[in-house]
Formats: sequence, structure tokens, C-alpha cells
Amino acid sequence: MQQRHHQIIQSTNGRRLYDITPAVVRWVGEAGIREGLLTLYIQHTSASIMVNENYDSDVLVDMESFFARLVPDGDPLFIHTAEGPDDMPAHVRSALTQTSISIPVLDGKAALGTWQGIFLYEHRRMQHTRKVLLHLIGE
Amino acid sequence: MQQRHHQIIQSTNGRRLYDITPAVVRWVGEAGIREGLLTLYIQHTSASIMVNENYDSDVLVDMESFFARLVPDGDPLFIHTAEGPDDMPAHVRSALTQTSISIPVLDGKAALGTWQGIFLYEHRRMQHTRKVLLHLIGE
Amino acid sequence: MQQRHHQIIQSTNGRRLYDITPAVVRWVGEAGIREGLLTLYIQHTSASIMVNENYDSDVLVDMESFFARLVPDGDPLFIHTAEGPDDMPAHVRSALTQTSISIPVLDGKAALGTWQGIFLYEHRRMQHTRKVLLHLIGE
Repeated sequence: MQQRHHQIIQSTNGRRLYDITPAVVRWVGEAGIREGLLTLYIQHTSASIMVNENYDSDVLVDMESFFARLVPDGDPLFIHTAEGPDDMPAHVRSALTQTSISIPVLDGKAALGTWQGIFLYEHRRMQHTRKVLLHLIGE
Repeated sequence: MQQRHHQIIQSTNGRRLYDITPAVVRWVGEAGIREGLLTLYIQHTSASIMVNENYDSDVLVDMESFFARLVPDGDPLFIHTAEGPDDMPAHVRSALTQTSISIPVLDGKAALGTWQGIFLYEHRRMQHTRKVLLHLIGE
Repeated sequence: MQQRHHQIIQSTNGRRLYDITPAVVRWVGEAGIREGLLTLYIQHTSASIMVNENYDSDVLVDMESFFARLVPDGDPLFIHTAEGPDDMPAHVRSALTQTSISIPVLDGKAALGTWQGIFLYEHRRMQHTRKVLLHLIGE
């Protein structure tokens, strides 16, 4: 049994879903592990990760529309406002989505379903540099 | 250290929670690993997995009532409508619940709490065939 | 490759987020594994785990305010009411947050981001004793 570590750095320029599938697929393909488990972990509390449909980009638009309505910016409910009207909503959106996701690896590939992609979901409006850690164990 | 892979195929005939605990428990019991980590991963973006109460089936009814109200079918907010009024809501429900769950294995069993069951949550109204991948590592 | 198991027992006295980061960090630090993967798993369906900001405690207050509004106690939508007006909402809150989280371990430490803490989220109002299982694999 062996393991590998990696880090994906994603620059973001606004609130939306960023497709990190190619970066994940490439690294897993080069890691030399045929069967095992891949884990993604995001080191932030105002951005998250999500496995979602990668075919019709309208799905990504609608996802954001839903979260924008569910967790409105500048909600008077919130007292943590010093970092801007989109900061506390970003923490709530992160809590409602995923900080870590684990995916089995088969035949040297992350076993994504036909329509699945892996996305970094940036919840802040300003530019950020986001780090996703990857851990792979197997043989 | 050893690992095992498995796949559970679940037929669904409508939007609700399907108890896959027996299938998971049976496979783990036969896998010959006493201590380790079990990971479940669903290869879909309009169905998800959930650990939830397995005692009173009213909990499952109420869970569905809540999600049906939170993410209404046919919401005019959505532009991704070509696959039906329940498709984009299914993607949102998947995002709000889980694509993967990892459970420690102790004494040859997934260490579920007393009232916990493992469910596949079908978010589409039509019949589907759903695949859940299982990965087990340990010794 | 080696693995370790551990259990954190957290007493709760009401609905809020409880910081379990120190207990997790201490155990990982003593486990003698430099690189690997840590998994947390909560054995309950009315309490959950969450990685969230650990700097400004107002974030924790706002998080609770949001969930209290999103999933109101005593909602007439629910039929599972025998265990109290906060029980079914607790199951829904658990479903919307996390039952398990996996975090890579680097240099003998869980690779939390700068502002990340690990919290047990108690969703019931009464006192409870909650169990979080920890699994660590690596070398």
C-alpha cells in the first residue's frame, strides 16, 4: 500500500463554480496507483468543493442562483459583517456544501460517474487563491 | 493493509430515501477486514447518500417534505429545464446532501451509531438505476 | 502503512457548535503517523460535524441563527414530533451538514487551513453525550 499527497492551487475571480476535474484527473493519472481511494480537502471556510453535473453549464448558473437566494448577501440576521456582506453567507454556503469528498480509484482513474465533474465553489466576490489538498492511497 | 472494492446497484421508482444498510452491512461482513475505513461514493448528481435515523420511517417522510419545500420543482429561478421540472432541483438536493461518506470499521462492522442507517436518496421522480461504489481499506 | 482508531466523547448542553479541534489535534499529534488521512465520523443523526471559521465566534452565532431560521422548530410540516419540536429539525440540520469529514495529515498534523476549526454541531436543546470516531491511516 502506498500514498501520495498533492495540492491544487486555484485562482478565483468571483463567486462561481470552477471546474477542477482536469487537474485532479491528470494528477491521479500520473500517481502510479491503480486501485485505491482519492480524497479532496479544501483548506478554506468561504469556498467549498462539490461534485456536480459537468455537461450543461446552465446547471452551474442555476446552482449559484439557488444559493444566492437561500443565503442572501447582507442578510440583517448576521452580526459577523466586518469582512463584508458576502463573508458570513460564504461560511454558510460552505457549511451547506462540502469540505471533503472521497472518490474510489479504479483502473488508475477516479471513478467519477458519466456526468460528474469536480468543482471548487468560490463563495466570495473578490479574487482569492484557493488550495485543495489531494490524498491518494492504494496500490 | 488490504483493500476491497464493491458496487451496490439500487433500482429506484420515485423520489424518496432507500435503505441500503443491509447491502452495506452484508458486504463489509464478508470482506474479511476487521479494522479500517469504509467509504461510500455515489456516481450520480441527481441522487445522493445520507446517514439518517433508521427507526421511525416518519423521519424519512419529513426529510422529503422539507427538501420538496426548500427546493421546489419547476422553480422559475432555474434555466436548466430541458430534463424536466425535477431535474435541476435534484442537482441542488444532491449538492445539499452527500456524494461520499466514510465510516470507520471496528470488529468487522461499519461503526454505525444505534439509530443510524445508510440511505440512497433518489431525487428524481422517474425510475432510475443507481450505483454506489464501496471502498474498504484496513486489516 | 498503519492505522489508529480513537473516540472523542463530547458532552453538550444545548444547541450550538462545540470546538473539538484541540482534542483532534492532540490525538493526531500523539498517534505517531507523519503522513496520511484522518477521518472523523459522528455516530448520531441529530448532531453533526463541521469545519468552520475558528477566529471570530460571531460566525458560530450567525451559523446557528441561519439554521434556526431555515429549519424552524415545531414546523407544522413535520409528522415526526413525538421526540419534541427540535428533533425532526435536528435530523434535517444533520442531513444539511456533515456526518463524516476526511482531512489529509502532513508533518504529523491534520492539514487544517489557517482559519479552520473542527466543530461538533449539537442540534438538540437538551443535554447529550456525543461520540465522534476518529480513524487515521498512514505512516
